[in-house]
Amino acid sequence: MINVGVLGATGAVGQQFVELLADHPWFNLSTLAASERSAGKPYSKVVNWRLETLFPEKIGEIKIVPTSPKAMKDVDLVFSALPAEIATETEREFADAGIAVCSNASSHRMEPTVPLVVPEVNPDHLGLIEVQRDAGRDGFIVTNPNCSTIMMVTALAPLRIFKFTDVRVATMQAISGAGFAGVAAMAIYDNVIPYIGKEEEKMESETLKIMGTLKGKSVKNAPFKVSASCHRVPVIDGHTMAVWIDIKEPVEKLSRAFCDYKPPIKGLPTQPKESVHFFADEPDRPQPRLDRMRGDGMTVSVGRLREGVRFVAMGHNTIRGAAGASVLNAELIMKKKYL
Amino acid sequence: MINVGVLGATGAVGQQFVELLADHPWFNLSTLAASERSAGKPYSKVVNWRLETLFPEKIGEIKIVPTSPKAMKDVDLVFSALPAEIATETEREFADAGIAVCSNASSHRMEPTVPLVVPEVNPDHLGLIEVQRDAGRDGFIVTNPNCSTIMMVTALAPLRIFKFTDVRVATMQAISGAGFAGVAAMAIYDNVIPYIGKEEEKMESETLKIMGTLKGKSVKNAPFKVSASCHRVPVIDGHTMAVWIDIKEPVEKLSRAFCDYKPPIKGLPTQPKESVHFFADEPDRPQPRLDRMRGDGMTVSVGRLREGVRFVAMGHNTIRGAAGASVLNAELIMKKKYL
Amino acid sequence: MINVGVLGATGAVGQQFVELLADHPWFNLSTLAASERSAGKPYSKVVNWRLETLFPEKIGEIKIVPTSPKAMKDVDLVFSALPAEIATETEREFADAGIAVCSNASSHRMEPTVPLVVPEVNPDHLGLIEVQRDAGRDGFIVTNPNCSTIMMVTALAPLRIFKFTDVRVATMQAISGAGFAGVAAMAIYDNVIPYIGKEEEKMESETLKIMGTLKGKSVKNAPFKVSASCHRVPVIDGHTMAVWIDIKEPVEKLSRAFCDYKPPIKGLPTQPKESVHFFADEPDRPQPRLDRMRGDGMTVSVGRLREGVRFVAMGHNTIRGAAGASVLNAELIMKKKYL
Amino acid sequence: MINVGVLGATGAVGQQFVELLADHPWFNLSTLAASERSAGKPYSKVVNWRLETLFPEKIGEIKIVPTSPKAMKDVDLVFSALPAEIATETEREFADAGIAVCSNASSHRMEPTVPLVVPEVNPDHLGLIEVQRDAGRDGFIVTNPNCSTIMMVTALAPLRIFKFTDVRVATMQAISGAGFAGVAAMAIYDNVIPYIGKEEEKMESETLKIMGTLKGKSVKNAPFKVSASCHRVPVIDGHTMAVWIDIKEPVEKLSRAFCDYKPPIKGLPTQPKESVHFFADEPDRPQPRLDRMRGDGMTVSVGRLREGVRFVAMGHNTIRGAAGASVLNAELIMKKKYL
Repeated sequence: MINVGVLGATGAVGQQFVELLADHPWFNLSTLAASERSAGKPYSKVVNWRLETLFPEKIGEIKIVPTSPKAMKDVDLVFSALPAEIATETEREFADAGIAVCSNASSHRMEPTVPLVVPEVNPDHLGLIEVQRDAGRDGFIVTNPNCSTIMMVTALAPLRIFKFTDVRVATMQAISGAGFAGVAAMAIYDNVIPYIGKEEEKMESETLKIMGTLKGKSVKNAPFKVSASCHRVPVIDGHTMAVWIDIKEPVEKLSRAFCDYKPPIKGLPTQPKESVHFFADEPDRPQPRLDRMRGDGMTVSVGRLREGVRFVAMGHNTIRGAAGASVLNAELIMKKKYL
Repeated sequence: MINVGVLGATGAVGQQFVELLADHPWFNLSTLAASERSAGKPYSKVVNWRLETLFPEKIGEIKIVPTSPKAMKDVDLVFSALPAEIATETEREFADAGIAVCSNASSHRMEPTVPLVVPEVNPDHLGLIEVQRDAGRDGFIVTNPNCSTIMMVTALAPLRIFKFTDVRVATMQAISGAGFAGVAAMAIYDNVIPYIGKEEEKMESETLKIMGTLKGKSVKNAPFKVSASCHRVPVIDGHTMAVWIDIKEPVEKLSRAFCDYKPPIKGLPTQPKESVHFFADEPDRPQPRLDRMRGDGMTVSVGRLREGVRFVAMGHNTIRGAAGASVLNAELIMKKKYL
Repeated sequence: MINVGVLGATGAVGQQFVELLADHPWFNLSTLAASERSAGKPYSKVVNWRLETLFPEKIGEIKIVPTSPKAMKDVDLVFSALPAEIATETEREFADAGIAVCSNASSHRMEPTVPLVVPEVNPDHLGLIEVQRDAGRDGFIVTNPNCSTIMMVTALAPLRIFKFTDVRVATMQAISGAGFAGVAAMAIYDNVIPYIGKEEEKMESETLKIMGTLKGKSVKNAPFKVSASCHRVPVIDGHTMAVWIDIKEPVEKLSRAFCDYKPPIKGLPTQPKESVHFFADEPDRPQPRLDRMRGDGMTVSVGRLREGVRFVAMGHNTIRGAAGASVLNAELIMKKKYL
Repeated sequence: MINVGVLGATGAVGQQFVELLADHPWFNLSTLAASERSAGKPYSKVVNWRLETLFPEKIGEIKIVPTSPKAMKDVDLVFSALPAEIATETEREFADAGIAVCSNASSHRMEPTVPLVVPEVNPDHLGLIEVQRDAGRDGFIVTNPNCSTIMMVTALAPLRIFKFTDVRVATMQAISGAGFAGVAAMAIYDNVIPYIGKEEEKMESETLKIMGTLKGKSVKNAPFKVSASCHRVPVIDGHTMAVWIDIKEPVEKLSRAFCDYKPPIKGLPTQPKESVHFFADEPDRPQPRLDRMRGDGMTVSVGRLREGVRFVAMGHNTIRGAAGASVLNAELIMKKKYL
């Protein structure tokens, strides 16, 4: 067991980290960092717990520390739920101070030496950790992609055995993706908002890095194009997306690829039994309310595979798409002995 | 003024017909037909009025008649809000009895001699009325497309001046599209249902007929392909859709096409000032709650035009996409003197 | 016609004021005030129009002025949609500068010399304007109550002919009551929040002043008690409330009182045909979505009157319960020639 | 372990029974009954599983039997999720055939010899089982109250030590209370429906029986009055209610009563650690989305206790308020050795 901490522990993703780490078999959640004004107070007094699961009482006693490597000396790894504008500098400080950073922030995702990893898709990209270390850093930064990107690349992984060059995706994203206070009820109720800032750009660029090839000290982008159209819908949790992919094989072969799929990693505590659940027969699945908690929120569901080729993918955006993704990355780091 | 009637007057679309016809300048709503058990009772006693507008009291006194040409002798034209399984036979009976039928039902849409018309898109297709008459029928049937198809073809009309062969569309459709009792609250609340029976097939076939060319006695399908992915979202009224179209021109030219667009018809009472409202600058529009009532529910809104080429279209599904579409067709029939 | 202005013109209630005043027969909306940083810009550029009705284009050209009497010299009356913390001081300045203030803010409601008025309930309380004038002020302040209070006192007005001493009310309030950004979607979706800050206190005190008696220079509170329990529910517009009142008469007599009710004023432009609509027979009404726009949003609906005595009241909280209430007060002020 | 069955196993409450019984320590779920046309097919093929928890695969293999004592000979106890109109006769047949019936249906609740039980409130009422047996029946019927009633009586239990005569309750009830298809999305979205058939009557009569006194062979109603106003709100699960009770003691004493409360039973597997969770300090709790799963859905939450005396109670309507209530009754029956 190693000691770990959470940066930004009181926010929406921060609370999910706490939830996932409270009883983790490999990680001892020893330290929680939040804003200056919370420092010194017990977590239970500063967090406004908004998850539908019960508050983990023992974690509630942990005293908040400021967000600095000095205040978190006893941890080997931190999970970052920081907003991007703070994460850029702060995560770098932690890495320079010898601490491993598993970040959900977008700040460093596209840096050439920072791995952007979904364990089931590109576990070997962790090799970039060596490049960071060779550059003289004691710690390192590993990132996971944007929530929508995670669902899509996890769903695309079984289809990599086929040739394709063109992916279109229209998302129907949950309100929790914007944080607890991110979307006003008056804005989204009885409505669709056909715009999420920078979301399309992230899906279009991050996907190519993740599905690209690590060659020597850098990643070569995957050779296809992604065109995204992102929309917010009145759903609490779970991003649904309609995907088109120009694979010329018969649909039955793709169906078999989904059914037979085995991810390239196994044995990680947070890894679900199925990284992709494939609905072969149910015509109206996946649905966010019924399927988002599959695999404790870590399984991506795929259905409605049909000529076109078209299919629908769906996953839990704050678990599989955020905190759970970072924790899974940390577990892979441990398993591969980078720590 | 001619006398008109409504078939299926108590349902969701039937109520919209009554609302639109209660004070119509060209049509005198004289007769309402509904199921046998309602016959003889005043409309006010058998309808469970669910529109947010006030019930038109004077129409409430009209006594329901059975759904047969005999019972509706004094009308020249009927609007059909019948379910497809009943419409097939019944609408034929009315047409054979010399009555014009403007139908929102899907039954006859794809018949070669039945016009499938959106006035702003293919007014000339009404020419098929002559073909029906030549075949010895006194009346005739004119249909409007499925609600999602209407939004899409209306939004595509300004882009017809460009070449394209491939259209993809992902819809986010309102619950009212399934009728008052069509979707259970438990099914759609906090959820997306990625399936609507036959909707994708309708969008893919109807679009090609509407945007096709009337040559002699038949319509030649438009020479492009449509691939649709249809989803139900928790919105009361207003179908939103993300569209990709393979036009190779710069986006600015498409933007100008939307701005400069003038529909080929004018002067119909139910026609909105703008058949297409184009949001050139607002990044997060159209939105169903804010834009569905534009043009009294008859305007289709388009926005987020960007490289790809991608855009978002939205319109009111029970007004522009159903009852309003039939009424507009009837107005065009009058104006073109088919009646 | 007199010139009027709106303070806080860009917010939720401010937009409703603009909507109601854009074509008013007695008031010429000439001036709009908002925060310093908007001053000098046309309204269309600073407002994020969120109403479902179309933006009134001609008002859009009005240039914003700062919120001060000096900047609004040409107006005789201002409508205040200011937040309470600003309203206290600012409204006083306007009144001292000789301008009539019709305020929706809570700041001055309970001041002994400020009329707290619902025209159908206590029009004579405007007499307090004289008291303000006698104290040397050129202008004056007139207020309308909190949104929930308005619905309740309007519904209670027809029952004043009976004796009662005890009123209990449980509210189910719409999210628009908290302003556009007041309630996060994550907070209220699939949820009830059983608490609205100060709402219960307002209902319990304001009701007694409104239904009290103007005697000489002050109002004597009404001799009954109100006990309120206030809850937020996932409804966009329309506050619903369950009311108990200890009237000992048979329910039929109360029913007749509702049916026969005539409000003590008439002929005001914003006044609805029915100030109270009574559902005598429909067992499941009123409902916010179906009934909130009755009387253009100015009618309070009452139903489910039954032994207990219990009934349900409902009205549109941002029209009848806010902007419309202030406009109606201003119309009464004109009619009674206080201006 | 005894063998148990479920009547009406495919519906909303039936599925909750299956979920609660799939791994029960005392009950072996061996038999599932549903409508004739499902008989003979495995449960997995006839149920449309709508719970957000994963389908219990091993139960899926059980073959459906018809709803008759003959077809369910191997069970000692059945849980009834039958609709009231079928339950009246069918439950009697099972009881006469020597089978214990724990019913969630309303049919027999008010029969003088049938216990209407909430284990934490009136466990001794099970004594009526002897009366049924004395009348010559081999089996017996035990019922649990209506969902709203359960929340209220559980919340009132700690206050029984005080004197009161008058209870008022306004409910805000979830849509799941009407079954999967019971409420149309068009009916409840952005709306409140201030009427639920027979709900008020049930709360007013059932409460008095449950909180009454078993004397000899019958229950004497509790000596207070209940007046209810019931409303449906757009919430998936969790009934919230505002309660007034005329206790004259200071609020602090009631607060202590809630804090110190110990229910009269213990050691039942489905019994939560707290039957009542009291929010002493949080001003805006309980909330259905955040608190309904407390105690695995079996805890009733109480908050906002204040002068009046008023408070808010909330609980999960399909778990604590339906299936869980019946299962808890069955556990009490076992513990008290009636089986």
